Amino acid sequence: MKIIGEKLNGTIPSVGPAVLGRDAGFIVDLAKRQAEAGADWLDVNAGTQPDREPDDLLWLVELVQSAVDTPLCLDSPNPRALQRAIKAVDRTPMINSISLEPERLEGVLPVVAEHGCQVIALTLAPSGMPKDAAERIDIAHQLIDRTRQAGVPDGHVYVDPLALAVATDNNSVGMVCDTIRAIHAAYPEVHFTCGLSNISFGMPARKYLNRGFLTLCMEAGLDSAVMDPLDVELRATLYAIDVLLGRDRHCRKYTQAYRKGLFEKPRKD
Amino acid sequence: MKIIGEKLNGTIPSVGPAVLGRDAGFIVDLAKRQAEAGADWLDVNAGTQPDREPDDLLWLVELVQSAVDTPLCLDSPNPRALQRAIKAVDRTPMINSISLEPERLEGVLPVVAEHGCQVIALTLAPSGMPKDAAERIDIAHQLIDRTRQAGVPDGHVYVDPLALAVATDNNSVGMVCDTIRAIHAAYPEVHFTCGLSNISFGMPARKYLNRGFLTLCMEAGLDSAVMDPLDVELRATLYAIDVLLGRDRHCRKYTQAYRKGLFEKPRKD
Repeated sequence: MKIIGEKLNGTIPSVGPAVLGRDAGFIVDLAKRQAEAGADWLDVNAGTQPDREPDDLLWLVELVQSAVDTPLCLDSPNPRALQRAIKAVDRTPMINSISLEPERLEGVLPVVAEHGCQVIALTLAPSGMPKDAAERIDIAHQLIDRTRQAGVPDGHVYVDPLALAVATDNNSVGMVCDTIRAIHAAYPEVHFTCGLSNISFGMPARKYLNRGFLTLCMEAGLDSAVMDPLDVELRATLYAIDVLLGRDRHCRKYTQAYRKGLFEKPRKD
Repeated sequence: MKIIGEKLNGTIPSVGPAVLGRDAGFIVDLAKRQAEAGADWLDVNAGTQPDREPDDLLWLVELVQSAVDTPLCLDSPNPRALQRAIKAVDRTPMINSISLEPERLEGVLPVVAEHGCQVIALTLAPSGMPKDAAERIDIAHQLIDRTRQAGVPDGHVYVDPLALAVATDNNSVGMVCDTIRAIHAAYPEVHFTCGLSNISFGMPARKYLNRGFLTLCMEAGLDSAVMDPLDVELRATLYAIDVLLGRDRHCRKYTQAYRKGLFEKPRKD
């Protein structure tokens, strides 16, 4: 199970001003803490101001890779911003994201293919959010047709089945898990990812729903997640589920993570 | 998802002396707190001293049912102790347990049948713990043949697939879930139960493993568990999984439990 660290995101209220104000210390600290917590990639998103986003993304990318060795996940809807940022990246990044929306598919997919990137593929069509598992599966098939045509290997594709809040749709988890199982059966090399916290939007005591969702999705085949690697209990849950699913021989990774203190909140010095 | 409250058990170090010493206040407090926390049954086990266990069980049963309305789950390997206790019970209890071991099967099953009880059926044979899912499934088939022959309806049978510690067998969860799925497919009326904490024996940070195990078993079809209803986080997990599996329409039970404070530790007054 791989972790895409979500915290370097300009749409988060504490992070946006740090990007706009070029607060390098704040950003480097967030990058290092996520890397030390075991993130496999660090998502970098420069926020929502289109006129300055390409410059902001470039600044973020150069700063973060000067501080940590963890690969980046470039998170932007803007193909030109991605093109510029990718040239500044030493280690091939993941790209977040493509979908069936034409501007994303035609703008971003060629960048992914040219640079040999891994890519998150959202099951999103121009008509909007898919209604059920069947629509998600259909969109995923179309996306994988396109990534294959572009020469992107299946093993570079991370399908995100887009979880709806369970408060608005009782069957949200079923849709996500059914999509993962169907796409995994059809394309065994394709990976899966998901943002975890949408599922609990509008509900109290969200952590129980987020952890349970992670568990059920991992059983269905989810092998990465966009999540907060600094959430100690969520991270411990992730290690525990790998044990329970028989994916951690002799429980070694679990006990090592425990001994490294990854299941405890870091002390504030 | 039903909860069998596990705390009134004479093998627990703090409870054994309270049974032997007839500490009614201690026992009644444990009974009331479990009932208020939402236990569907209260397991009552008088401990491990064979010469006095029948008397102790009778005392426990009479005391607990004078304090709470929650049905009891009579937990004893001794058919005579069960026979005596059952006559003192107002509301038909669950019996814990039968197995393929002759003394349990031939001694306890007639009591279950005679009194119309629900019963926990351990997938345990005279030869010892089953090695894999296939043995568990085979034992469950034999047990259900016997309960049917005895006239016990399938809906009264709670199969316990006996979880091994994941530290000793990497595939322990798979065995339990495969057993639940196979027996559910063959006997749709049969229920399932499981002690949760065995799974994490010998491991650190056991709560993450216990919660994850609960989640995976519920997805497979587990519909009750022998557990601590006073474990706030485990109980919240249980409500959350019912939401995520689409078994709690409009998230009503979850939000009601949250509003009743069931997700918070009770204050010590």
